[in-house]
Amino acid sequence: MKRFKLVVAYDGTNYCGWQIQPNGITIEEVLNKTLSDFLKEEIHIIGASRTDSGVHSFGNVAVFDSETTIPAEKLCFALNPQLPEDIRIVSSAQVADDFHPRYCDTRKTYEYHIQNGKIPLPTERLYSHLVIFPLDVEAMQEAGQYLVGTHDFKSFCASKTQAQTTVRTVTGIEVETHSLSEGEYPSQKVIIRVTGEGFLYNMVRIISGTLIKVGLGVYPPEHVKEILAACDRSKAGETVPAKGLFLKKIEYL
Amino acid sequence: MKRFKLVVAYDGTNYCGWQIQPNGITIEEVLNKTLSDFLKEEIHIIGASRTDSGVHSFGNVAVFDSETTIPAEKLCFALNPQLPEDIRIVSSAQVADDFHPRYCDTRKTYEYHIQNGKIPLPTERLYSHLVIFPLDVEAMQEAGQYLVGTHDFKSFCASKTQAQTTVRTVTGIEVETHSLSEGEYPSQKVIIRVTGEGFLYNMVRIISGTLIKVGLGVYPPEHVKEILAACDRSKAGETVPAKGLFLKKIEYL
Repeated sequence: MKRFKLVVAYDGTNYCGWQIQPNGITIEEVLNKTLSDFLKEEIHIIGASRTDSGVHSFGNVAVFDSETTIPAEKLCFALNPQLPEDIRIVSSAQVADDFHPRYCDTRKTYEYHIQNGKIPLPTERLYSHLVIFPLDVEAMQEAGQYLVGTHDFKSFCASKTQAQTTVRTVTGIEVETHSLSEGEYPSQKVIIRVTGEGFLYNMVRIISGTLIKVGLGVYPPEHVKEILAACDRSKAGETVPAKGLFLKKIEYL
Repeated sequence: MKRFKLVVAYDGTNYCGWQIQPNGITIEEVLNKTLSDFLKEEIHIIGASRTDSGVHSFGNVAVFDSETTIPAEKLCFALNPQLPEDIRIVSSAQVADDFHPRYCDTRKTYEYHIQNGKIPLPTERLYSHLVIFPLDVEAMQEAGQYLVGTHDFKSFCASKTQAQTTVRTVTGIEVETHSLSEGEYPSQKVIIRVTGEGFLYNMVRIISGTLIKVGLGVYPPEHVKEILAACDRSKAGETVPAKGLFLKKIEYL
């Protein structure tokens, strides 16, 4: 028996998230079925990040045990033709038998994608959140810096969390822009990139919702310090929609 | 009766192109029906560019005549809620009664989007063409410069064209890249941006297919001069898929 690690990319639009659940199709379910059919063994993957319904990924990680003799690095190329087009194995490798994708030190990078413009561009509708009023990106960038470091992120955690501690370390927040369209009502894409060693439930979406409020001028950038200090979910911005969120990569340290 | 100009963005994935045709739903058909229902007049739009099935747009132009008293600049905001999510009116304005979107001097900008990487990323599948071998972007950029100017583009025109002359003016070609994903098999997006005063049928897709061959090392960049001189469609690269093509904007000169 060998343990394999898969890096998994998906378009979350048509899935009820990662984790198997009774009311809809999930990434985990599709991977278990595809792997079991292909390898002719019953496979149960373990995922690194149980992304929510609608969240996209370029680099989630899944681990499974198998007797297969297919070379580990070739597995991705063998599996991809068996998978629906909206899920792809980006790479595959053999790992130590006791490697667990969640009980390791990791650095995760998420991106939150915003279309900032008056008119929702059709080709952006599935992969970004529309903000129609102009965003002050410099103010968002400044506000983000107050969140970098090891802090109690209770204000940035969905109240239904089961986490034992709400202290987490954010190692970097960057806000960048690209032009999307010109004309009477131009649009730009604003990307909030958050890197950290573990995140609380909905944390990146609440950080993004809070930085958007800063960008809109509702809060001055330094007000984010007070939100952090309050340890009160109701003080932060809204949990912005899942469709703008991308899990970009998980680095094992 | 007043004449209105609409700038129209769409996700071409689910349409059989712009122009009304018997075998499938088109952008023109949806706009005619939506405008007619909303304005309670029979509306027949005239489009600037009859984009092919699957091609996307950020800035096609349509013109129509109407008795409506809705202020021209507000029309886009009134129409958008009536349209399917994959079509949006980006702006609206009143124009001269004799303005015709095709019989004017224009500068059009198209982009061709390529995902360059070994594994097709799910969130790119509808909006880019996958090229799995590494592209030499500098060579593509150099090759593109041989096409800038006024030339006979017969080699870059679908053989079924009805055009009276195949001489066209390309004012600029740029090739740029953005990182999409890292890891074992990293991916980048390669964007070929072509600007010109009118294009032949499939011209941007054939230029892109030819620059891809240069990027793959099949041709040296300067071979593009010979392709141009040959005036023979069979000498150029393939017509790459529609889903990678975006009509970005049409400027009226």
